[in-house]
Order: sequence, then structure tokens, then C-alpha cells
Amino acid sequence: MADQYAQSGEDIRHSEDIQPKTVDLSAIRWEEPAEGPVLVLLDQTRLPAEEVELVCTDPQGLVQAIRSLAVRGAPLLGIAGAYGVALAAARGFDVRDAADALAGARPTAVNLGYGVRRAQEAYRAALESGPGGEAAVRERAAAAAALAAARALHQEDAEASVKMAGYGLRLLDELLPGGNHRILTHCNTGALVSGGEGTAFAVALAAHRMGQLRRLWVDETRPLLQGARLTAYEAARHGMAYTLLTDNAAGSLFAAGEVDAVLIGADRIAADGSVANKVGSYPLAVLARYHHVPFIVVAPVTTVDLETADGASIEVEQRAGHEVTEVTAPQAPLAGMEAGGGIPVAPLGTQAYNPAFDVTPADLVTAIVTEWGVVSPVTAESLGELCSRSRQVTSS
Amino acid sequence: MADQYAQSGEDIRHSEDIQPKTVDLSAIRWEEPAEGPVLVLLDQTRLPAEEVELVCTDPQGLVQAIRSLAVRGAPLLGIAGAYGVALAAARGFDVRDAADALAGARPTAVNLGYGVRRAQEAYRAALESGPGGEAAVRERAAAAAALAAARALHQEDAEASVKMAGYGLRLLDELLPGGNHRILTHCNTGALVSGGEGTAFAVALAAHRMGQLRRLWVDETRPLLQGARLTAYEAARHGMAYTLLTDNAAGSLFAAGEVDAVLIGADRIAADGSVANKVGSYPLAVLARYHHVPFIVVAPVTTVDLETADGASIEVEQRAGHEVTEVTAPQAPLAGMEAGGGIPVAPLGTQAYNPAFDVTPADLVTAIVTEWGVVSPVTAESLGELCSRSRQVTSS
Repeated sequence: MADQYAQSGEDIRHSEDIQPKTVDLSAIRWEEPAEGPVLVLLDQTRLPAEEVELVCTDPQGLVQAIRSLAVRGAPLLGIAGAYGVALAAARGFDVRDAADALAGARPTAVNLGYGVRRAQEAYRAALESGPGGEAAVRERAAAAAALAAARALHQEDAEASVKMAGYGLRLLDELLPGGNHRILTHCNTGALVSGGEGTAFAVALAAHRMGQLRRLWVDETRPLLQGARLTAYEAARHGMAYTLLTDNAAGSLFAAGEVDAVLIGADRIAADGSVANKVGSYPLAVLARYHHVPFIVVAPVTTVDLETADGASIEVEQRAGHEVTEVTAPQAPLAGMEAGGGIPVAPLGTQAYNPAFDVTPADLVTAIVTEWGVVSPVTAESLGELCSRSRQVTSS
Repeated sequence: MADQYAQSGEDIRHSEDIQPKTVDLSAIRWEEPAEGPVLVLLDQTRLPAEEVELVCTDPQGLVQAIRSLAVRGAPLLGIAGAYGVALAAARGFDVRDAADALAGARPTAVNLGYGVRRAQEAYRAALESGPGGEAAVRERAAAAAALAAARALHQEDAEASVKMAGYGLRLLDELLPGGNHRILTHCNTGALVSGGEGTAFAVALAAHRMGQLRRLWVDETRPLLQGARLTAYEAARHGMAYTLLTDNAAGSLFAAGEVDAVLIGADRIAADGSVANKVGSYPLAVLARYHHVPFIVVAPVTTVDLETADGASIEVEQRAGHEVTEVTAPQAPLAGMEAGGGIPVAPLGTQAYNPAFDVTPADLVTAIVTEWGVVSPVTAESLGELCSRSRQVTSS
């Protein structure tokens, strides 16, 4: 299985003149062909059937890619948002309008707004503080500053991945001495959501590299099957021992004592330690508590939003019902499909409840692993302390 | 929505010369055209896209229909098994071989074996105790006895539905005074699994008819989507207020206080009160306990298997991985589909964990509702007492 995917991994259609063929996943990259700068995204809606890249030449194209989940995952959304501002600046679009549209494309992931703001502030600061002279020259300098901010965020995220993987692995060693871990994960938290190797998935990958991963249990993650489509794809590429399951089969694994730890990412962490993550995370937290299994959240500090007081204050994105009432193939639409692009599986007119995320209260979270260390137990105090430490160092 | 389905319900393609058009669902029926007796099944794999009937002329065809889930649901499997024996007898197949094949078609639902045995015993008793004379005459009498046994089981199941609905409704009134219930259900437990209106669904339907059902939350029930395809279909036909959700979104509903009770069916209940039911039932039981919500199992007494001591002794059917690694449309296969008949959603070669059922221990079950009354609290003693009461009356 691993060999098969190592091979197919080499088939990724990178533009060969720009970078060499590699098995690394490049979920996002900035390019500057003669026609002008573009943002190139791996279209995640078509994985694993096809490895196709989307080229964004304007911020609206990126907004659409974010909404359709062609690009997704909290850290990557931050990077994409920052590059989107840089793209708007470099291509001469109104930067404030672009920033507003990008930041509002999806409401729950705090990282998206963070990345947008960071590039926008760099742009604004350069415009205001830069040397006098022609407007066009000043605009170019500001666009370069926005791009530099996006690149810095991209790089920091890659570095954060490495650190989260290290802290996470050490935590697993402490909680589960002896190695040989059976880890359950939900949604997708690997290289496809990150400038590096991801959040929760990066920890599992580090355990795999140390010979300490016995099994990665991959929740398929309905409705959009990010686990089946993306996490299984990443696990196969790395030759990890993994098994796919329907989300509701996790209960049987817990009952059979087959889960040593749950590792998930986060889209927003409130000041009280409540964690918003892909829908289905909260039921796993309740199962983990019932079975005395550690429930570990892995996320960069930028995911913590001290402006959001508690779980109840987190805005949870409600998505269209057709994601539930139709099934969609991860490939080009088939002939005969309905409006939502899928095959109907419920009676026409069926109403669906389709929250994209759920909220797990802090008391069900064993630990939050960040690039600044591990918060455990998770309380408003411990989380606030970590954040102020990270911000002191960042701003010093 | 309700009107739309009341209308489409009239389109069911019944053989018009045999019975009038009706909005009643006929999941199974025995017919005797000139060519010989047949068992007619509504093909549940194609609902709600198409209402197509399968005609079984031999037991092997029925075994295949059971394995493919064209006919499914614990009580209906019992009825189908009994009719299958009657079909074998009427068509001159070896009855013992047919009974063995039918009883072994699926391992978890105890009702299937019960229905098979009941018709087989009626057949055997008639053959042994019947009047002497030609073998063909005796065979005919025995076949008639098997058919009479199947029809009796079918009729009893319809009557059991009515009683379970009554007891279940009374229990809801006691547990949740004030009516206006928001009930969460999993898989499909209505007329499509029953000689009558079903088990758990029949209770929700009774509440609806009394004006006491505020909302039926319908779990889609991965991997085969019996909730989306079948329960939504039945709810729409009855004009019930229902909303579909992915199984993993149930946690958000519990957390928001939107679930007043969980009602599910059962495929086998062990002597200690452990309940095997569709995979995903156990996580709901854990969520219900965590949120102090009643978790109610509705099943006929034939589902109780006193020969199976406890939950750990229940054999759980493991189904093929392609049910998880591919998505299948509830209609005729599309061109270009792979071996499993669906569209791949995971990398080729992905291994899947796909138990069809899970087991909920008795201490998580608030009550078991049967046609003989309600068992609560659920213990080996209370369950044994109910069973012996039902069997005394049945055999007297």
C-alpha cells in the first residue's frame, strides 16, 4: 500500500520548470510567472482521485476556493488569507475590500482572519512609513511587505509543525509509556492544512517515524470525508499503518480498548479552553472521557482567540444541507447530478442540520499541544499564560 | 414536503391486479401467481430513488437479497426467513438446506434464525404428524404448514408493532411529561423492517399522531445511509417534522439540549440486557448518558436471545471495506464504477474497519420496550422475567 502511493505521489503535477518533482505535498505556493503573480493551490476537493492545481489570479478566486473547501484547514487558511492580501496588492486590487472578503469567507477558523490581518497590517505599515515618491513605487513596496508577511507566516507555520510534533510526541511518551500507540484522528490535519506537516497528523507522523505508531485510526469525517479522502491519502503516502472507519464506528473501537489516544486539530480555541473543531470531535471527546482515553488537541497558538470568551461565543458555520442529502464523488462531477453536484441519498426536500464544527469544553480536553508547549490541564489561566508567553517573545 | 411524499407514495408499483394502490409500505409479501408461489420484496437498496420490487422464486435468491440488504431490519428478517422456508417447501427445494442457508445469511440479527426455525419446525411437525398417504400430498400439507407459520409470524409482528408503539408512547409520557418531544433515532426501524409500522419508528409515529412529536432527528447512519435513505423516506411519507444529520453531528444536538430522548431498535439483546444494534448506537448511548437523556430500545421479545449470555458473546457481523471506501448511490449502478459498485472516496488499497453493529451494555439503556411491556431498569432478572411471562402466555 505504501509503495503504491510513494509511486503515485511522484505523479503530482507540479509545474516542472518551477520546482522539481517531489513527494512533498505542496498545498499552497506563490509563483511569479511573466503574466503576473499567482497563488497556486492543490484542489483538495478532488483528492485522492486527482491531483489537480488551482491557479488564483485574483482575491475573488481565492475566496471561492476557500468557500468550496478547495483550500481548507485552520493553519493553511491563515496562510492562504495572507497570500490573498499579497495577491490583491500585487495585482492592484483594493486591498481593504479583498481583506474583508477573504476574512469573511469562512467564519469559524480564527487563523484565516489572523493571516489576512497580518498581511494587511504589513501592507498598511509599509504604505504609511515607506519613503515618499511616486504612488506606484510606494504601492509596490507595500505589496512586497504583504508578500513578505505571508511568506513569514508560511515559514513560521512550518516551524510550528515541527515543534508541535516534538511536544506532542513527548506528551504521548508521558501519557502512554511504552510506545506502540493506537491513535484515533478525525478530519485532516496534515501537510494539506499547513505550511509544514500539520498539527495532530504531524504528531502521529512523528510517532510513526520513531517506530511508535501501531495504528492510525482514521475517521472518515462526514459529510465531506476529509478523513477518507485526505488523511488516508497522506497516511498512505507516508507508509503509515492506518485503517479507515465510519465516524460512528469509533465507539466500537473505544469499547474494544483499541484506542490509546485521540489526536485532533482545532479551528478556534476560546479563552476558556473550549475547542471548536470539525463536527464529530465533541462525540469523540465524550467517548474518550467515558473510556478514560486522553483527548489531545494540537494547534498553533494563532488558533487561540482570547477575544472569544467561551465555547458558547464561538460562531459555528452552518453549511448547506446538500452536503448531507447528497453524496459527492471526489472528482469531476458525473453526468446526471443534481444542483448540489452530488447524487441524492435522501428524499427530495429533506431538511438537513449541517454544522461544520462542534465545540468541546475544556474539561474534556486532556491537553492542548502548541508550538510554545503543552497546556494541561486546560484552563483559562493556563491558556492565557501560554499565550502571553508566546506574544512576549514574538513581539520582543 | 409532506404533501409531496403523500403523492409520490401513491406511485408505488404494486401489482395492480393483486392489491389496490395504497400509501402503505409493503416491505414483503407472498404471492401465488400461476407460475408458482413467489416472495415479493421492496428492494431497499434502491430507496428513495426508486421503488422497485424484487421477486424471489427460490431460497438462494432470498439469501442474496438478505446479504445485499435489499431486505433488512431485525423483525423483517425473521418474517423473510420464515417465508423463505415456506418458499423452499412450496417449490420443492430441500427445506433443511434452505433453512441453513437462510439462517446463516447474516449472523447478528437473532430474529432471522427465529423465523427460519419457526417455519421449519411447522414444516417438520406437519410432515411427521400429518395423515399417511402419498409423499407429494404430505409435502404439500407440510409446505402449507410452513406458510401458515410465516403468515402467523408476519401477523404477530404487525400486532407487536402496535403494542410497542403504545407502551413506548406511555413511557415517553412518563419520562418526558408535557409532550412536544424531540426524538433522535438511528438507522431504520419503521414499516420497512416490520410486518407492521416497526419498532422505534412506530413509537415516534405514534407520538406524531398524538401531536406530541416536535422533531424527529434522523441520523444518516453510515456507511449504508439507512437513516437518510429509508427513515427520511418513511418520515416524509407520514408528514412528520424531521431533520437529517450526519451521525457525528448528534453530539452538537445533545450539547445544545435539542434531544429529549433517543429511540432505537435492536438486532439481538443478550440475557444480560446488552443490546446489539446498528453501528453508531453505542456512541449515542454514551452521549445520552453524558447528557442525562433517556436511551430507549424498542424491539419485539423475539429479539431477546437468552442463549447469548452477555454483550461480549454477541457475534458482530464485519462487512466488506468497500462500503466505507466507496460511496454508493441508491439507484442503478453508474457507468465507470469500481468493483464494489460505488465511487472510490479513499486511496486504492485503503483498509477499512466496518462492523455492522455495536453493543450497548445494559447500564446505558434506560428501558427496553417490547410488545409484552417495558423493562426498566434493564437487568438480567427483569429481562428474564419478561421473557418467561411472554413465553408462558404464548405456549398456553
